[in-house]
Amino acid sequence: MDQAIPAVVETRHGRDPGRDLRRVGVNRDHWYPLAWSGELKAGKPLAVRFAGDPIVLVRPKEGAVFALEDRCAHRQVPLSNGLVEGCAIRCGYHGWAYDQSGRCTDVPYLGKDKLPNGVRAYPCREAEGLILVFPGDPALADAVPLPALGSVADPRYKTRRFGQEVACHYSFMHENLMDMNHQFLHRKQMGNMVPRYMGGDKGEGFVEARYTFSRVGGKQPWAEAAIFGERRAVSAEVPAGKAVQKDLMTIRTEYPYQTLRIQTGDDAPVMDLWIAYVPVDAAQRRNRTFGLLSIKRPKIPGLLEAGWPVLVLFTERIFREDREIVEMEQAAHDAQGGDWNQEVFPVIRNLRALLRDSGGETVAAG
Amino acid sequence: MDQAIPAVVETRHGRDPGRDLRRVGVNRDHWYPLAWSGELKAGKPLAVRFAGDPIVLVRPKEGAVFALEDRCAHRQVPLSNGLVEGCAIRCGYHGWAYDQSGRCTDVPYLGKDKLPNGVRAYPCREAEGLILVFPGDPALADAVPLPALGSVADPRYKTRRFGQEVACHYSFMHENLMDMNHQFLHRKQMGNMVPRYMGGDKGEGFVEARYTFSRVGGKQPWAEAAIFGERRAVSAEVPAGKAVQKDLMTIRTEYPYQTLRIQTGDDAPVMDLWIAYVPVDAAQRRNRTFGLLSIKRPKIPGLLEAGWPVLVLFTERIFREDREIVEMEQAAHDAQGGDWNQEVFPVIRNLRALLRDSGGETVAAG
Amino acid sequence: MDQAIPAVVETRHGRDPGRDLRRVGVNRDHWYPLAWSGELKAGKPLAVRFAGDPIVLVRPKEGAVFALEDRCAHRQVPLSNGLVEGCAIRCGYHGWAYDQSGRCTDVPYLGKDKLPNGVRAYPCREAEGLILVFPGDPALADAVPLPALGSVADPRYKTRRFGQEVACHYSFMHENLMDMNHQFLHRKQMGNMVPRYMGGDKGEGFVEARYTFSRVGGKQPWAEAAIFGERRAVSAEVPAGKAVQKDLMTIRTEYPYQTLRIQTGDDAPVMDLWIAYVPVDAAQRRNRTFGLLSIKRPKIPGLLEAGWPVLVLFTERIFREDREIVEMEQAAHDAQGGDWNQEVFPVIRNLRALLRDSGGETVAAG
Repeated sequence: MDQAIPAVVETRHGRDPGRDLRRVGVNRDHWYPLAWSGELKAGKPLAVRFAGDPIVLVRPKEGAVFALEDRCAHRQVPLSNGLVEGCAIRCGYHGWAYDQSGRCTDVPYLGKDKLPNGVRAYPCREAEGLILVFPGDPALADAVPLPALGSVADPRYKTRRFGQEVACHYSFMHENLMDMNHQFLHRKQMGNMVPRYMGGDKGEGFVEARYTFSRVGGKQPWAEAAIFGERRAVSAEVPAGKAVQKDLMTIRTEYPYQTLRIQTGDDAPVMDLWIAYVPVDAAQRRNRTFGLLSIKRPKIPGLLEAGWPVLVLFTERIFREDREIVEMEQAAHDAQGGDWNQEVFPVIRNLRALLRDSGGETVAAG
Repeated sequence: MDQAIPAVVETRHGRDPGRDLRRVGVNRDHWYPLAWSGELKAGKPLAVRFAGDPIVLVRPKEGAVFALEDRCAHRQVPLSNGLVEGCAIRCGYHGWAYDQSGRCTDVPYLGKDKLPNGVRAYPCREAEGLILVFPGDPALADAVPLPALGSVADPRYKTRRFGQEVACHYSFMHENLMDMNHQFLHRKQMGNMVPRYMGGDKGEGFVEARYTFSRVGGKQPWAEAAIFGERRAVSAEVPAGKAVQKDLMTIRTEYPYQTLRIQTGDDAPVMDLWIAYVPVDAAQRRNRTFGLLSIKRPKIPGLLEAGWPVLVLFTERIFREDREIVEMEQAAHDAQGGDWNQEVFPVIRNLRALLRDSGGETVAAG
Repeated sequence: MDQAIPAVVETRHGRDPGRDLRRVGVNRDHWYPLAWSGELKAGKPLAVRFAGDPIVLVRPKEGAVFALEDRCAHRQVPLSNGLVEGCAIRCGYHGWAYDQSGRCTDVPYLGKDKLPNGVRAYPCREAEGLILVFPGDPALADAVPLPALGSVADPRYKTRRFGQEVACHYSFMHENLMDMNHQFLHRKQMGNMVPRYMGGDKGEGFVEARYTFSRVGGKQPWAEAAIFGERRAVSAEVPAGKAVQKDLMTIRTEYPYQTLRIQTGDDAPVMDLWIAYVPVDAAQRRNRTFGLLSIKRPKIPGLLEAGWPVLVLFTERIFREDREIVEMEQAAHDAQGGDWNQEVFPVIRNLRALLRDSGGETVAAG
């Protein structure tokens, strides 16, 4: 990989001319998952946040899920504190009611001809166990397709839905996953794996990187074997110069989503991860991660199910290490008051440019 | 009530021209309760706050309660951390002493002719179990009467003293109580009561609103029956068009205090509430509530005492619901960075004008 | 002492012309203890802070302790989260390595000829159980001597190492100790001791004050007797006009350190305290205290050891009272937004001038 990387001699400040990547707000004109379907019970409103905006999700007893601005037009208290009545929600304070379009349909002490303005409604869809909302210009929503959710709908795969809140800007998440040199972080979970960068690609709205791996020490973890469906030797056991693994890992940020696929040959991927990082607070210093990890079922029925608890534990540990380190990056950024990164890896430089160019408005310091 | 309310078509920002009501500091030239008498033990100084100003209350072993600025002129540490000596208080750090007028009377290591300046003293009174302080211009204190404390001194009444700290600007408290359409908030405690606005009044320093109520569903709570001294039917059980209850509720803000009275006829009120909301912090985002809830004793002796625990529980629940909702209002205000209320009820508009006009200096964001 | 103190008539603001003492940053061109030797294990990096700057201390398995800026040049995450390898530390994220001079010696995926800039190294020494760092201009470090650490190296003394974090600017610590009129604060621990100021001294980089004490009430605490090696009578038991104690206490701030010595005659001090207050956060509102309390061993062997637990408890209590009061001073300063102290004691005025003149850059509000 050395060949591809120019020597970097930079001074500390003033790298990344232009705006601070950690202040680039997410582009609102995309579909973002705001909840898992299972979190939203019929008749029980659910309060969520997108980049600081309070949104209430409502699943009527009958009819489709809808999403409104989560504050009553009257006194600004959360509608999620109120009551679902048919396809409407009624504020719990003075009883103002709104339908799924946000129109105010009743104020108990006002005539129907005198009803005040309502609240904002957000385009809302439900797919593969995710509730997705379009927080940008509603006029654009129909023209923007829902994201392809990896192999989640493919019966040859079993999917783990996972995620949690991480206290950092979403850009740290993208960079963490795409720079596989961070394998070193997971040395306790994975053993000593050396990534080899095999090239990448970039274009309108995406950046991609491909890697292979050599194991130079440590034992292959069971969960990894479960993913590949076989056990692998370490490099030391094979003749020098011979490629140890032909498995190809492809990581792709297709704004604003990210995917990671592992292929062992020309077949369908053995692992297919789709992930989204959704800003929670106005400063976009926290994101909620929604991940769909699809594993191809091996030929022996029941094997994947049997290994599932180990796989869950393994991925949780990996994810915890990632969460801790990106939160340290965010903390360093905030303490330093800017982005002092000295990035030497061209793929990550491309990714940073993509995130900066695709993003939305600059957000204020948190 | 519909007739009285004009259609409201307003844009979101720029309502309430002039300053943001939630930034209007309380007018200091009134008497404010800062503690219950029982909280202040003889010889044990008590630290309290008025709009961020630290005040120490002192009850000498002999003599009247007094109030001083709660910081030593020397090193600014709280005098409330010191010792009461006769009618003086001595700082616990280097031993500087002050009398009830705030004059420095002793520095152990300085000659009496060299004593430095003292600390500010506040006019202070004790009445009906309340310790009241005048935080404004001391020269005005004698001319401003203590508030009339409802029916607390009337032996025909039994009074509950209650209150706690609520994390909102005092104006939300006034608006909450005066807009009886918020009865909807208490539907679990009270059942479905429909308020009917019967008119109001406003004048120099006050706004008043009058209501009657119809029960359209739910069972009358026992505590409510205890207050009225009788059980009531729901509207459905009486012929249409017939007034169900002649009970009149009168709510009045007489700046800076608020009262709520319920009269069942021409007699003295069955319930007489006096309440004050005292800002605690400098940003006036928290207030300590002091309430005197006087209930007229029914003819049967001992009945009120027997029902008292139920009444306490009932009022606590009501008050908790109110506290939660006004704290949501404050949180919304702070998140929105201004007052986005779309108020349609003329009484509340009048109240807001009163609070704005009667208030003191604008306070900075907390 | 009265004679020495002029009458002070000052208005509240605008005392101490010039900058606010509580905003004077510590002068970085001195040696500051950042950890106890025992806290730093071989091969286990230790994260510390100096005035907000993150510093990692490293004790290699072989070789001297060293100190680096605690963030990787690459992604700014703490190096203290990484691995010690020989005399180098490797970041736990992507594996960049640095030697004790801060030079980057390895990036696993970069050629040795392309290594990027490294991190800052701090001059570092270890003495008498303290790890001291020079946070200022490294070129000056060799010319600035390590502090004399009291009697800690003298075998005639037994030393207690103590300290904790205190939530105030270091200047409050110096003033607290030097103004022995604050003996009043410790009346519960010490009884009623009246300090007598015997004069002081000031010069280039130091201020000194000398006191004697008379006990006018209360019982001498055992721990105090242990320090003096004898029990003392109260003043009331000796003829008026006769000096009760000839013990001389000398308190000296020799910037940035402070010492307190008690001498009972012309001999070596019975107690010799050395103390340093090291700012932790960038606003310098918290300091970590490192104290070396050396007590001269009495003639009877084992006596000091026997009394040690009592002495530890006694000093902990004294220190807790001091911590509480200086934290109140800091809280008052921050609430008042400036230094309102009305200081009447010339020694403390001199000390304040010394701290202001010897300090470093002004720090921003926390």
